[in-house]
Amino acid sequence: MRVLGVDPGLTRCGVGVVEGVAGRPLTMIGVGVVRTPVDADLSHRLLAVEQGIEQWLDEHRPECVAVERVFSQHNVRTVMGTAQASAVAMLCAARRGLPVALHTPSEVKAAVTGSGRADKAQVGAMVTRLLRLSAPPKPADAADALALAVCHIWRAPAQSRLQQAVARHTSHATKGRTA
Amino acid sequence: MRVLGVDPGLTRCGVGVVEGVAGRPLTMIGVGVVRTPVDADLSHRLLAVEQGIEQWLDEHRPECVAVERVFSQHNVRTVMGTAQASAVAMLCAARRGLPVALHTPSEVKAAVTGSGRADKAQVGAMVTRLLRLSAPPKPADAADALALAVCHIWRAPAQSRLQQAVARHTSHATKGRTA
Repeated sequence: MRVLGVDPGLTRCGVGVVEGVAGRPLTMIGVGVVRTPVDADLSHRLLAVEQGIEQWLDEHRPECVAVERVFSQHNVRTVMGTAQASAVAMLCAARRGLPVALHTPSEVKAAVTGSGRADKAQVGAMVTRLLRLSAPPKPADAADALALAVCHIWRAPAQSRLQQAVARHTSHATKGRTA
Repeated sequence: MRVLGVDPGLTRCGVGVVEGVAGRPLTMIGVGVVRTPVDADLSHRLLAVEQGIEQWLDEHRPECVAVERVFSQHNVRTVMGTAQASAVAMLCAARRGLPVALHTPSEVKAAVTGSGRADKAQVGAMVTRLLRLSAPPKPADAADALALAVCHIWRAPAQSRLQQAVARHTSHATKGRTA
């Protein structure tokens, strides 16, 4: 499975492609950051994010896109930009018919470090180890994007079993109502 | 000037096209709502919003898109969806090279009713009167989209004078620094 992880942001949008399956060593295919100028018009920044994500999709052809789920507890201005950048990433994936998975920051941290409250340095260190890199990817947004992709590869089997169970339950329930 | 007003939302995204210039009677060209299913995947809902907005842009060829500026004071879940739907609208406009203007809800209310705290009914009544319609457009999201377009046509001359002044000031300042 080849996954594009996206740590959404307007100023720096982290992107990382990881390939592999749960239980086997994973491989980093690429990592980077899509940047947009802080002083540009919001609509042009969103367009630049779209163009950046499209390039990554074209170049690396992932089968799935994992995006950080945005919460609005944090700084109000930042969160709006993050939500909007994440919308662009999801839209690019959906347009190509790629499945989109959302993972919360604590799910990602727990997946790669064992603790949902790990700090940036810990996430960077584990990403470096798990993908056998020579140094932690910089900036942190790039490392976070790789962590998201790793998290997705490891969680995907459990998530797909869960979805199948929900689908079975729903179809039974519907049959029950129709009868 | 022909303006597409967008009242962003995932469940109901209001769209309205108005033509005219400040100081002359305005004409409604079209009004409607782009809907997406509540139980669909978020990425598919964003894709449906994009397809809807694209249809309106193709059909009515506006010169400018006015989108409601989203604030995060309100309900957290709703605001994230609204921010994401607005990102899609801005992106569609930017991709075509159309200018995007953002207006706050109170700017829109003040423009069409004279009060920034007017209720939905008052906005609907004034949109009906200003565009000489036989009845208020329904749902409220559709009326709000028309109000946004009207607000933009009326505010555009002042905004463009302001932008020119800022541009002049900035270019003077830059010259000052370079010298």
